[in-house]
Amino acid sequence: MPRIGYLGPQGTFTQEALQENLSDQFDEQVSYATVPEVLRAVQTGAVESGIVPIENAIEGSVNVTLDTLAFETDLLIEREVVHPVRHCLLARKGTARESIKGIVSHPQATAQCRGFLTRWFSGVPVEAANSTAEAAMTVSRSYLPLAAIAPELAASIYDLEVLDCELEDHPANVTRFVVVGRQKSPHTGNDKTSIVCFIQENRPGSLLEILTEFASRGVNLSKIESRPTKKVLGEYYFFIDIEGHVDDPEVSEALGSLVGKLRELKLLGSYPAASVGG
Amino acid sequence: MPRIGYLGPQGTFTQEALQENLSDQFDEQVSYATVPEVLRAVQTGAVESGIVPIENAIEGSVNVTLDTLAFETDLLIEREVVHPVRHCLLARKGTARESIKGIVSHPQATAQCRGFLTRWFSGVPVEAANSTAEAAMTVSRSYLPLAAIAPELAASIYDLEVLDCELEDHPANVTRFVVVGRQKSPHTGNDKTSIVCFIQENRPGSLLEILTEFASRGVNLSKIESRPTKKVLGEYYFFIDIEGHVDDPEVSEALGSLVGKLRELKLLGSYPAASVGG
Repeated sequence: MPRIGYLGPQGTFTQEALQENLSDQFDEQVSYATVPEVLRAVQTGAVESGIVPIENAIEGSVNVTLDTLAFETDLLIEREVVHPVRHCLLARKGTARESIKGIVSHPQATAQCRGFLTRWFSGVPVEAANSTAEAAMTVSRSYLPLAAIAPELAASIYDLEVLDCELEDHPANVTRFVVVGRQKSPHTGNDKTSIVCFIQENRPGSLLEILTEFASRGVNLSKIESRPTKKVLGEYYFFIDIEGHVDDPEVSEALGSLVGKLRELKLLGSYPAASVGG
Repeated sequence: MPRIGYLGPQGTFTQEALQENLSDQFDEQVSYATVPEVLRAVQTGAVESGIVPIENAIEGSVNVTLDTLAFETDLLIEREVVHPVRHCLLARKGTARESIKGIVSHPQATAQCRGFLTRWFSGVPVEAANSTAEAAMTVSRSYLPLAAIAPELAASIYDLEVLDCELEDHPANVTRFVVVGRQKSPHTGNDKTSIVCFIQENRPGSLLEILTEFASRGVNLSKIESRPTKKVLGEYYFFIDIEGHVDDPEVSEALGSLVGKLRELKLLGSYPAASVGG
């Protein structure tokens, strides 16, 4: 069985999504420190597949994932997985909640649990970590009674106790992950296609032209995201998710007619659409 | 003269942008810990204006700014300021570069200086901070020889030495800040208008309909950004920047015709367009 790279360290939400949805399909899980490192490992063949977060229901797109897929690698999305983000409060075993002297987490996780922190830990200092899993590791090694905001999976990995769970302000907090590799996924009848559009120049109506090619053929777009080209402020490329498979005639026709109108059209693959829920 | 709130703590890029562009217009600068706190302070009248980052040329939109302006406050953008992001390496005075035992910064700043860190500080641990200014403060208080990646302004505030500057991988790294308040800005002939569009339902062609209202009147859009509504994954609202002032007849007409087609159209104001550069 093949190997899969994931955004680490051990105990991240990405690994949680991997273990709950795909663990029987891979016989080795390899942790990488950043999203670009996961994707480059797939590109070079160090692993056959990789799983990375691409969009969160509260925060929006994971920009580094979009940008790396658009600019740095030449990979296909093979599958998407929607996984709930349940933030837990983790401390060393036997730690009383009242004794906690500091909270540790990634700034984004801290921001998502603002209501909980204000209610229960007002005045307690909040330290930053490079990831929620790193926060759990820091807490496990600290002499002071600290608590991490981290995924439940991190409790078992770092030998911590779950003091509380579902700390997040928004109950609809789910993340969409993509599994990337080199395999073309077959047509299932309930598919999505992701593309990247680089337009010729920033002029009125460019985006309108793109949208018209799809709308005129009755093809729905489930997502459209503008991202900076990183050359000059105000210049964007577009990351678009289409409902349908590239083997569907209307999708194929729309893409065909776009090729001549764009500076570059990059196909990131067609893959089965996940049901959204939690 | 009025007071202005800014995203703090002291020594952030936001304060740098404020001091270099607007300091003569305000007689008091008030630091707030988060973007929502700055904007709420303007909303409640604790300060007359606020300045917050809204878009970075490399990272893209500052989501918390878009979401707070869209959902939580009822303010107008009075002005925009484009300010370069120059990351500097700051250490306590007399620290030799070779002796540095750790780098401290906000994870986003660290990510923007990846090339510099790999070249000069390979193997040196990178600690996370809640902001680049907090990183500078941590370094100033540490007994170990640490260095912060932070704005140059933070060096004078925390009594540190600038060991190096322009650490960022991308030379085009600039941030667009907005000054928000309650004043309507006058027509200058080189203006921008920001709006938020909440569509009736997620159906094919909604965005196309919006774009058509502008394109058919020759109005250019300088930015369009989809953001999650935070209710369910896959449901978005749109944040749009229009070239022109709401007092221009074609802009006014396009907005007028949109009102009936949208669930909600929120006007965030017309203001003079900044020249992009840096």
